[in-house]
Amino acid sequence: MYPSLFLIPVPLGETEPSKVLPSYNREVILSIRHFIVENVRTARRFLKQTDAGIVIDELTFYTLNKYTSPEEVSEFLKPIENGYSIGLISEAGCPAIADPGADVVAMAQQKNIKVVPLVGPSSILLALMASGFNGQNFAFHGYLPIENVARTRALKTLEQRIYSDNQTQLFIETPYRNTQLLEDILKNGRPLTKLCIAADITLESEWIQTLTVAEWRKKQRPNLSKRPCLFALYK
Amino acid sequence: MYPSLFLIPVPLGETEPSKVLPSYNREVILSIRHFIVENVRTARRFLKQTDAGIVIDELTFYTLNKYTSPEEVSEFLKPIENGYSIGLISEAGCPAIADPGADVVAMAQQKNIKVVPLVGPSSILLALMASGFNGQNFAFHGYLPIENVARTRALKTLEQRIYSDNQTQLFIETPYRNTQLLEDILKNGRPLTKLCIAADITLESEWIQTLTVAEWRKKQRPNLSKRPCLFALYK
Repeated sequence: MYPSLFLIPVPLGETEPSKVLPSYNREVILSIRHFIVENVRTARRFLKQTDAGIVIDELTFYTLNKYTSPEEVSEFLKPIENGYSIGLISEAGCPAIADPGADVVAMAQQKNIKVVPLVGPSSILLALMASGFNGQNFAFHGYLPIENVARTRALKTLEQRIYSDNQTQLFIETPYRNTQLLEDILKNGRPLTKLCIAADITLESEWIQTLTVAEWRKKQRPNLSKRPCLFALYK
Repeated sequence: MYPSLFLIPVPLGETEPSKVLPSYNREVILSIRHFIVENVRTARRFLKQTDAGIVIDELTFYTLNKYTSPEEVSEFLKPIENGYSIGLISEAGCPAIADPGADVVAMAQQKNIKVVPLVGPSSILLALMASGFNGQNFAFHGYLPIENVARTRALKTLEQRIYSDNQTQLFIETPYRNTQLLEDILKNGRPLTKLCIAADITLESEWIQTLTVAEWRKKQRPNLSKRPCLFALYK
């Protein structure tokens, strides 16, 4: 195995790894001794869940957060120069999509290190698949602004792009603010614009539904409080 | 199992299913008798590869292409009303992302049918992970225009959005035109804009590299001819 930076996805919440991760990922994990992680405790738990026989004490963990300096990241990548692969483990879902991992990957690319992404669950992609919306042209925006005027303006701009660019618009919110975001969408959206809400993706309680804004307005609101959700808009 | 429309991903090219698909997908497939597919021959091959014991003759296939009418799609979904789940199988990668499957999902959502997306390889997402680019804000545009003036304009617009919106821009090209697209990007891009080329994702020959436009210009061009590629731009 050519020494590489492997990007290792993790289940989204309490899900069996075999439900959302290929068995090949386990093989890769078992061949690696050096891991860059956001939280050592949860990373250890994931590794034990992947293979109960893993001897955690033989592994080296490097902790990554938004305060980690470029010099530290550079240091984390040293084992590759000595021939040892490194695994970058996400806290949930796919590394480097919505977490600090992207900086590690960017530096690896700068150093001409081989980067190998492994398959795993992405709530963005799974929501897009299940929405029925345009998958040939789509944008993910992360979090919208919290402040009222800025948020309304952001929602209007995204809705405009659906019609001008034929582009699906995806975004997220902190779970305890989901209910408020839904109200803001229903207040500001055009009646015929479609909204897909995808909650608890890959979990037992997974729930994904697409309706027009007008239809959502007439329905009893779903309970989205504290549930990880993706919101998608299209025409 | 609640009767649902399962979205079933397929490997990208000649790859063992266990490398890119969770074992759970196999369980779901073995519980389904009705499949909506683009090409019956390749779908059969995928099913046999998933489980050599599958009795193909006991399965019903509905063929989907861009000429399939909404009435036919509605007919395809009938088994769900009678309590039987349906699998929507992609030709490669994840269904409903860049194939006609999205229309089937849209109709299922309209009919209030439960839609369940399964995890699998998406070249868009894997390229984004490995690029080191912004994964909190990104857009995928499918194919760019072929005609020279329109393509140059499209490339300039996308590059502008990197800087104005802090957004990663992803797109693809028909494999035999990859070489030309690369030349067009290098001709029109700003020197410090970064370009990630991701070729043959998940295959043995996988190759992913990020460099600035200025750096790519100085290098010998990679051979991208006939290789499926994702192109990503960021700052």
